[in-house]
Amino acid sequence: MPLLLDPARAPALDELLAGTDTQGLEWRIAAPDGAPMPRIAGIGSLSSAGPQEIGFLSNPRYQRQLSETAAAAVIVPPDAEQAVAGMSPAPRFVRVVCPHPYLLYARMAQWFDAARRPAQAPGVHPSAVVAPDARLEPDVVVGPHCVIESGASIGRGTVLGPGCIVGRDTRIGPDGLLHARVTLYAGVRIGARVIIHSGAVLGADGFGFAPDSSRGRGAWAKIPQLGGVSVGDDVEIGANTTIDRGALEDTVIGHGVKLDNQIMIAHNVRIGEHTAMAACVGIAGSTTVGARCTIGGASMLSGHLTLADDVHISGGTAVTSSISRPGRYTGVYPYAEHGQW
Amino acid sequence: MPLLLDPARAPALDELLAGTDTQGLEWRIAAPDGAPMPRIAGIGSLSSAGPQEIGFLSNPRYQRQLSETAAAAVIVPPDAEQAVAGMSPAPRFVRVVCPHPYLLYARMAQWFDAARRPAQAPGVHPSAVVAPDARLEPDVVVGPHCVIESGASIGRGTVLGPGCIVGRDTRIGPDGLLHARVTLYAGVRIGARVIIHSGAVLGADGFGFAPDSSRGRGAWAKIPQLGGVSVGDDVEIGANTTIDRGALEDTVIGHGVKLDNQIMIAHNVRIGEHTAMAACVGIAGSTTVGARCTIGGASMLSGHLTLADDVHISGGTAVTSSISRPGRYTGVYPYAEHGQW
Amino acid sequence: MPLLLDPARAPALDELLAGTDTQGLEWRIAAPDGAPMPRIAGIGSLSSAGPQEIGFLSNPRYQRQLSETAAAAVIVPPDAEQAVAGMSPAPRFVRVVCPHPYLLYARMAQWFDAARRPAQAPGVHPSAVVAPDARLEPDVVVGPHCVIESGASIGRGTVLGPGCIVGRDTRIGPDGLLHARVTLYAGVRIGARVIIHSGAVLGADGFGFAPDSSRGRGAWAKIPQLGGVSVGDDVEIGANTTIDRGALEDTVIGHGVKLDNQIMIAHNVRIGEHTAMAACVGIAGSTTVGARCTIGGASMLSGHLTLADDVHISGGTAVTSSISRPGRYTGVYPYAEHGQW
Repeated sequence: MPLLLDPARAPALDELLAGTDTQGLEWRIAAPDGAPMPRIAGIGSLSSAGPQEIGFLSNPRYQRQLSETAAAAVIVPPDAEQAVAGMSPAPRFVRVVCPHPYLLYARMAQWFDAARRPAQAPGVHPSAVVAPDARLEPDVVVGPHCVIESGASIGRGTVLGPGCIVGRDTRIGPDGLLHARVTLYAGVRIGARVIIHSGAVLGADGFGFAPDSSRGRGAWAKIPQLGGVSVGDDVEIGANTTIDRGALEDTVIGHGVKLDNQIMIAHNVRIGEHTAMAACVGIAGSTTVGARCTIGGASMLSGHLTLADDVHISGGTAVTSSISRPGRYTGVYPYAEHGQW
Repeated sequence: MPLLLDPARAPALDELLAGTDTQGLEWRIAAPDGAPMPRIAGIGSLSSAGPQEIGFLSNPRYQRQLSETAAAAVIVPPDAEQAVAGMSPAPRFVRVVCPHPYLLYARMAQWFDAARRPAQAPGVHPSAVVAPDARLEPDVVVGPHCVIESGASIGRGTVLGPGCIVGRDTRIGPDGLLHARVTLYAGVRIGARVIIHSGAVLGADGFGFAPDSSRGRGAWAKIPQLGGVSVGDDVEIGANTTIDRGALEDTVIGHGVKLDNQIMIAHNVRIGEHTAMAACVGIAGSTTVGARCTIGGASMLSGHLTLADDVHISGGTAVTSSISRPGRYTGVYPYAEHGQW
Repeated sequence: MPLLLDPARAPALDELLAGTDTQGLEWRIAAPDGAPMPRIAGIGSLSSAGPQEIGFLSNPRYQRQLSETAAAAVIVPPDAEQAVAGMSPAPRFVRVVCPHPYLLYARMAQWFDAARRPAQAPGVHPSAVVAPDARLEPDVVVGPHCVIESGASIGRGTVLGPGCIVGRDTRIGPDGLLHARVTLYAGVRIGARVIIHSGAVLGADGFGFAPDSSRGRGAWAKIPQLGGVSVGDDVEIGANTTIDRGALEDTVIGHGVKLDNQIMIAHNVRIGEHTAMAACVGIAGSTTVGARCTIGGASMLSGHLTLADDVHISGGTAVTSSISRPGRYTGVYPYAEHGQW
């Protein structure tokens, strides 16, 4: 993997830490005697980081890699720092000692991500089609071929990649990031600092039909979906994920929820704060998921259920009844060699 | 939830019913003595509808909510009307008595949906790219950034949202509605009154490859998919659903079929009339599904199967063999607390 | 199904075979005595092919259809040719005898597919938005409403359908085909002769978050995804499939890999050469799949696993542990009539 930054632009480790958002984190630098402060041009794992990069040790299982890493610096937890101090020969890398090395890595990666991303000048690309009565804060970025319909509003600092569509009366909060080709139907409300990936569709009609034998045996009448979608602050929504609008009330995604790719959230589902779901999860209509839950990939939840806060569902599990107690729940059919199966 | 209509524009209940499509439905208004005809500005559930809205009772389980609803009017079945007539104190709401309250609710919601949707002037947005030999009826609406390729035809009354792509020689019947960013490949035929949601892709190549060891161990030769996709009348197709074109014959979606989001229909599948499928269903190649079936969410059907008419598959079921008799079929692996599992 | 070609343009069978790519294939024409060389205007199955079309027999199960086919010519394996020679009355169709009839059918279908596809003049559609420093070979085709960002490069002979988005510094090899509305984020590298279908998204952020209680109970910090996506030569990627970028290293798709629709490949997955996956498969992060594997539809693979070369997973199987030996593996929960279940 190439370096994230041109080494000539790379900050010294102490500069990097000063630039990194370390709110709520304690850290200190522990250097071998006389070691200069290294310049850091990228981040890598212990096994891949080179002499211009910083690595991190977040899982004790990889501690023995410390003796072999080529990294210029390593983020380590306090107990590993003690082990490093006793290593012989003494390692050459500088340590950043922090009780939460994985979180510090995340924050430092945010610094690199911002540093390498080219600045985008505010403004509306001339190929975009924006309704005269849409309200755009002056500093928003609207990419080529976007469409912003009547009555929509886009909060300050928000960036819309190419080809995004913002339906009638839809609102996006400040500091949002819509990657290329996100579709928001009419009447969707998005909070602050929300990230949405390409191909996501918010506000399509929920799946509602009433039997209508007056139109033929087995025929269906469409039930218009008159509710909307409400998405809280600090939510991230993955590529090609779909969140349907409600039938009469809104579908609601709480603050801080993280949704991976190709997730399907049906109408009138409610997701509690900080719940995270891996890819390919499907949640049927009117189910309520609590706060701080995790749902493993390819799980499905039936409709009209209620899951308590702090419920954790293993990947591939079909949840067909409500869960009232926190805990981990699993239901994965085992596989075997075909002949044995 | 806000009211659907400005109360100043709201119709009186009898006007609303006169405007609603009640074909095939019997209904009558039963008002408390001396009650005026209320104005109705929206629809809600019994628990959420306010004094300017109409509610409905379609499930007897919720009958006791009748004594507490704030709704100005309620759609009720005849047996509930008898119960209401005997309530003490007498309820203040006006009743619309109808043997099919859920269907009447659906039809009334259709009225509200049309009433609140702004009219769209016919015409092709100047940013759309339309081939000179494409045939568009004079009253169609083509949104910004649409692309309509050579030989395509769009029937009267059809609306294409922003960013739709209509491939070469593809035909769309009258009164269709393609929401933003629907992709139709070349050679797709769509019937009348079809609704397609954003991100849906019709006519991508079916997954067909022949082993070709002449190009290397394990290599594959592409089998071009020379068939098309044929979609009947009154079909609805959900967001990010994919329907592949056939290998030699067409993939066929029958009249009145309803497909939810993120469904995958492989090449040469045939779906019978009025069959409905919930989200995340996958159907492998060359399988035939009968008429009036329902397939629950996240179910999968293997390839080359035949399902009879009136088969109902529970959500999350893997159907690996043909089904020749109507009925309900289920195969969901149970889940449990992780330790017990 | 209509004929693929106007019969007036149809080649004689020997001309068709001369035009077909038969590299690595042995074949010969066996005609009834005195039979003229038929003109071939299309391909069909034995049961559907008409007197201006060629059929093929690749599965011995269908051999008895030889006596009833209306096809003008049939591709048959040598053993079937012997049976045909002994049929009484002698069949009227001309045979193309080939040990690999399915592969010859695939190659012949490629000829028809090219013959019926209208030529596209090279050039960039005026509605496309191309960064001044993007590098496009002179013969590429860039469709309407495409966006090609700074530093991107498009190899010779590559065709981009309408609405494709090619992110910053992304590279596409020669002779690629991106159907309408493919999204490539920044920093994606695509090899030669790659086909990508509509709605596919390559390079969205992998799903990476670190717990960050400093921002609230249960809150998450985003881990920027600093790796890219690398796709080899001769790969095909289906509609609405998503392949996420790596966290620190690239996500890697090997040469010759074939991915169907709605597949989800998470960050840092590595797929070996010529592996094929049917629709709706999900592979969690950092799993490695070997070469020449096949993964049946709707299967899921947990994260951090390793599958050996030549592993075959039946559709609908949840693979939750590594597999070190070639073979077929299955885990599908059986279904039954609902009452019995």
